[in-house]
Amino acid sequence: MENNGFEKKINGNGKLDIRILGVGQTRFGELWGASLIDLAVEASREAIRDSGTSIKEIDAVVVGNMLGSHLDNQSHLGALVTAGLGIKASGVRVEGACASGGLAIATGIEKLISGTARKVLVVGAEKMTDYSTDFSTQALMGASDGDEQLAGITFPGLYALVTRAYMEEYGVADSELASIPVKNHMHGSLNPKAHFRFTIDVEQVLKSPCIASPIKLLDCSPISDGAAAVVLGLGKRRGGRNVRIIGFGQGNDEVGLASRRSLIEFGASKEASKKAFSMAGVEPKDIDVMEVHDCFSIGEVLALEDMGFSRKGEGWVIAGNGECKLGGRRPVNTSGGLKACGHPISATGVKQLVELTRQLRGVNGSRQVEGARIGLAHNVGGVGGTAIVHILESGI
Amino acid sequence: MENNGFEKKINGNGKLDIRILGVGQTRFGELWGASLIDLAVEASREAIRDSGTSIKEIDAVVVGNMLGSHLDNQSHLGALVTAGLGIKASGVRVEGACASGGLAIATGIEKLISGTARKVLVVGAEKMTDYSTDFSTQALMGASDGDEQLAGITFPGLYALVTRAYMEEYGVADSELASIPVKNHMHGSLNPKAHFRFTIDVEQVLKSPCIASPIKLLDCSPISDGAAAVVLGLGKRRGGRNVRIIGFGQGNDEVGLASRRSLIEFGASKEASKKAFSMAGVEPKDIDVMEVHDCFSIGEVLALEDMGFSRKGEGWVIAGNGECKLGGRRPVNTSGGLKACGHPISATGVKQLVELTRQLRGVNGSRQVEGARIGLAHNVGGVGGTAIVHILESGI
Repeated sequence: MENNGFEKKINGNGKLDIRILGVGQTRFGELWGASLIDLAVEASREAIRDSGTSIKEIDAVVVGNMLGSHLDNQSHLGALVTAGLGIKASGVRVEGACASGGLAIATGIEKLISGTARKVLVVGAEKMTDYSTDFSTQALMGASDGDEQLAGITFPGLYALVTRAYMEEYGVADSELASIPVKNHMHGSLNPKAHFRFTIDVEQVLKSPCIASPIKLLDCSPISDGAAAVVLGLGKRRGGRNVRIIGFGQGNDEVGLASRRSLIEFGASKEASKKAFSMAGVEPKDIDVMEVHDCFSIGEVLALEDMGFSRKGEGWVIAGNGECKLGGRRPVNTSGGLKACGHPISATGVKQLVELTRQLRGVNGSRQVEGARIGLAHNVGGVGGTAIVHILESGI
Repeated sequence: MENNGFEKKINGNGKLDIRILGVGQTRFGELWGASLIDLAVEASREAIRDSGTSIKEIDAVVVGNMLGSHLDNQSHLGALVTAGLGIKASGVRVEGACASGGLAIATGIEKLISGTARKVLVVGAEKMTDYSTDFSTQALMGASDGDEQLAGITFPGLYALVTRAYMEEYGVADSELASIPVKNHMHGSLNPKAHFRFTIDVEQVLKSPCIASPIKLLDCSPISDGAAAVVLGLGKRRGGRNVRIIGFGQGNDEVGLASRRSLIEFGASKEASKKAFSMAGVEPKDIDVMEVHDCFSIGEVLALEDMGFSRKGEGWVIAGNGECKLGGRRPVNTSGGLKACGHPISATGVKQLVELTRQLRGVNGSRQVEGARIGLAHNVGGVGGTAIVHILESGI
């Protein structure tokens, strides 16, 4: 790369225009035969092949990872993944709890706009199933406020507080929220990369073991291994439809729930989506397909409300009435979401863009949303301490 | 901030022009009364005060941290530090082993150039002394290649291999390298923020306990707590001399030493400095004052050679002959370096810019380098897996 002076052409028209040149994803699930770096390299190689770019053109690598240093004592992943790919590039790791993947994408975009890189590989990867559930659960609490850790609560408990507050505020029953994982499992059953490829029904959700009342086992996304990657650049991808990132935005909030003004909305999601919509010059009504952060069923409800897809207190209605299902007006989480596709923490935010890119290229097979032109990805860290939204558009 | 469209003015003249508006630093050392977040907030508040900027103008926070998730099970520091400061801003954590601080600065610069932020707070923080040395040493090995961890070697051992190879290649004695920590302790004795404020002599270095032959205790930087912060922006700081970042560059290499072509040079440092010099339009001869990564004595020698301040095999001569000492031709590590100022991992790369900014403002008291106009910061991750260089210039 020429580092001497900066490129201006990409923002010459005042609009963001970042091309998603290639996408790649490992299967999500219990992948005991592959290490964290194996997974990152596999997804990266697929994305680079898909981009039609020579691997030598990649001049920056951004790795999203949360748990490597806690679970596997492996930090320095920017350098390790870059070396694992056998390329000369600048590598860096980015972390923001479960939003690490989305933040890594944003960091990659900033590298492109600032001209410090011309082709950026962004890969989110996580290895979680080699360890006891206790150990992984403890590591995940690193996303919370330290006081919450000392209190002994875990993430299902924190999201249970949110779910309970929501149900009481709007008079919603748990059976009404159960349609969300049912939908996402139906989508996941069509995704060969998904952790869970079976369908479930509302009765199964309600009869599944209670994890933290009112959250049942089948309201919870799983602990998964996996990686997802995208190659970002400025030029066009050769062959097939091009997909561009036309807007992104980040929001942050108090991390500890005790410090929040409200338990039933995520201010970070509101802010992130507001910025992203403004940058992209589109509105919720323009979005054809979405991936949102359904770590627990309530997550999908709040995402729909906080980003303006429904009025407050009514997200559960559209999440459950079929309009978010494949074939509905605006399908949500066609990948299966975090619930059924799986939730290898930092891979999630990148996988959302992989799924949307396939949708906007029109090559998503049995999960294709016909005529999808504009997509939105919504990725959350902690219980809404961080949120990041990307908006994608298909083009020529 | 206006997120709709991007600013172009900063690179209108094709040159980087990032202002260091404010700097802050906690004392480095064993700070048992303060948490990781306490330290990050303390340094940040000092930097914001120093910048004359209203805290409300900070619209992005980049936190450099390596060990929080391993030692203290605390991830998600971008959101936590932002909330700890009580501001509405986008927070993200960046990690690249001991180069995390420098990478966080680079990420902040990219946010400014890309227009996603107008005032960026970058803070590097680490809390290392609340734990057993064994536990901290193990966590630090997260910066290495996994195979090196399995072999049971630690960082003093890895740097001992480098030191031994260098001594044998160039016929250098350990007494000749010992002058480096002696110089850095002399500088540190003048720095009220330094972990070690006492001077040492060559005999003390040579008689100190052998850690990993030929490295003695007094060749090693310590395990420290501490934080350092800078406020970056585009406008001018009110009052006093302005300091700008005019170039930066990153290099990466194989992380494991077994995969390197050479043990006695860091390709990452060569590449990082080449990019930074090119962007800044300056050469080694133009640099008046430097902070380099002297985690072990050999680190300072390689830094001088790899960045072109001496011929290969002669870095130890200039490091020891007085020209790198305060009062010499080009003082190196006037803060005391990692050796005497201390090495709270991710704080180090940011502290280097704090020290240089004070030098270039001409307000560095007993450590002032008279007439210093251009400074260089050199920060390394692992045993040269990552390197990042920033070049600063004083201006009006």
